[in-house]
Amino acid sequence: MHQRSAHRSLLVVGSVAFDDIDGPFGLHKDLLGGSASFISRAAAYFTKNVSVVAVIGEDFPAKYLEEMSAQGIDVSGIERAKGDTFHWVGKYADDLATRETIDTRLGVFADFQPKLHDSHKDAQLVLLGNIDPALQLDVLKQVRAPALVATDTMNLWINIKRADLEKVLAKTHTLMLNDEEARLLAGEHNLRKAAAHILKLGPSSVIIKRGDAGALLFHGGGVFAAPAMPLADVQDPTGAGDSFAGGLMGYLAYAGDLSPTTIRTAMIMGSVMGSFAVEKFTVDGIRGLTTARIQQRFDELSELAHFERVRL
Amino acid sequence: MHQRSAHRSLLVVGSVAFDDIDGPFGLHKDLLGGSASFISRAAAYFTKNVSVVAVIGEDFPAKYLEEMSAQGIDVSGIERAKGDTFHWVGKYADDLATRETIDTRLGVFADFQPKLHDSHKDAQLVLLGNIDPALQLDVLKQVRAPALVATDTMNLWINIKRADLEKVLAKTHTLMLNDEEARLLAGEHNLRKAAAHILKLGPSSVIIKRGDAGALLFHGGGVFAAPAMPLADVQDPTGAGDSFAGGLMGYLAYAGDLSPTTIRTAMIMGSVMGSFAVEKFTVDGIRGLTTARIQQRFDELSELAHFERVRL
Repeated sequence: MHQRSAHRSLLVVGSVAFDDIDGPFGLHKDLLGGSASFISRAAAYFTKNVSVVAVIGEDFPAKYLEEMSAQGIDVSGIERAKGDTFHWVGKYADDLATRETIDTRLGVFADFQPKLHDSHKDAQLVLLGNIDPALQLDVLKQVRAPALVATDTMNLWINIKRADLEKVLAKTHTLMLNDEEARLLAGEHNLRKAAAHILKLGPSSVIIKRGDAGALLFHGGGVFAAPAMPLADVQDPTGAGDSFAGGLMGYLAYAGDLSPTTIRTAMIMGSVMGSFAVEKFTVDGIRGLTTARIQQRFDELSELAHFERVRL
Repeated sequence: MHQRSAHRSLLVVGSVAFDDIDGPFGLHKDLLGGSASFISRAAAYFTKNVSVVAVIGEDFPAKYLEEMSAQGIDVSGIERAKGDTFHWVGKYADDLATRETIDTRLGVFADFQPKLHDSHKDAQLVLLGNIDPALQLDVLKQVRAPALVATDTMNLWINIKRADLEKVLAKTHTLMLNDEEARLLAGEHNLRKAAAHILKLGPSSVIIKRGDAGALLFHGGGVFAAPAMPLADVQDPTGAGDSFAGGLMGYLAYAGDLSPTTIRTAMIMGSVMGSFAVEKFTVDGIRGLTTARIQQRFDELSELAHFERVRL
């Protein structure tokens, strides 16, 4: 699916990290993680026009960068700095439905100042992964005229960096966040009202990710509900939302347009990639996929959601 | 939509009750409630071939029965007994996402023994609302050869009447329950695995209701995900699941067949009726609807869920 000529360029800014993940399947240490790791790998199945801007420490194995390059991802914007790679330690409840952060060691992320190469400044699609909104703003000041800026965020930034986040939202076309984050940002429990509130902050659309309940797209023209694939074996939800974002943005780059019809399909591709991600730890679930397997799960989701329109 | 000739007969067995409901909108007392109240009213929009078997006390106003009759519902199986009508007292959390039972006054329900009129024994579709499985079994012994037996249940019966419930399940085609109940019944958190477990207990299909996350149908042939309508104004979730069941079974009675295609459409009609139910207290949300309004919300759900099948 990489032969289409009209692919748009996708710039991904986010974290590359190590994760220690505890939960019902025991403690897994030093897993490759970070929003940009999941996003770029998921997107690269749809287009070879993906560039990553991120920072890694001296301890980061070159093999992971080589793996990205082999997938066609432009890693020239991944800066290696003195110090340790960002490290997140989290623990999931036995039902995998909730998690808590045990430790966050920023390492090289503490002093990260994203500097875009000239070739990255003309990116047509920009995905700001979940990082400090001050850094997201830095990126937005450097890109020239993106057709779409999509932004992810989290509770932490909503709580402690609200002013910066609101500046980012003013320049964001599509905000992606989970249901609890949407509620926190809007100060409103009802998701439809929360979405309406968020749309007043700048974005023309908001995507609310709900884990195994799927995702909702709210925009001026209405609402779209993307189902999640009910999976029998879920190992690790880490990176599901980022894989969703990567699949969505990768498909938009591939399709070459931003029509409502294309965006709906892109959300299903996001759901597909999120479903693969949770089946294994780290990026293993989205490693080594084929177009045929992605198509198969897309078809399964199509079948899952299909019903006939009838007239009473 | 009541003119179609092939309507099958639908027998609803359940509770007719008063509810006291506390929550973010204050305390509302002596509301009409009970599974059969919601189910039969929701179903009656699709077919005039609905009969109810239930029990009421001396305190139950005749006006509610007259209202049902005016909707075309056969209330001849609603027995009036000495004592008070079943009364449920519940309290919702501020976000309406959880509730607790404060008090249950069984009243005439304590000695209820459902006795079916001869005309009810030939019902083609039977919906066993959420009542003691021993009573559900009594009903199943009296019906002759229903094409479909659908059963609802709850945590209480799973915990204290498991043996009776398993006898009911052995004779049930479609079990409807919410996600927490499915997990409890199966002893398994993962919904896909829980559904597989439940299908071994007798039912050929299981519908897992997930509130504002929609409903999942699991059966031998696969999975269907019915979306829920994201609503801005939710007043009272009480009766949502029963209204879903009523819409679903009413549509099946109307359609006159049980094909997979029809069952999917029926689930969407269930979602439609559930969405109306939560917008107001008691049965007010499903009072006074028209075919046009039901069709409109069905069309909205169709639009909400629609995406194009593509090939990568």
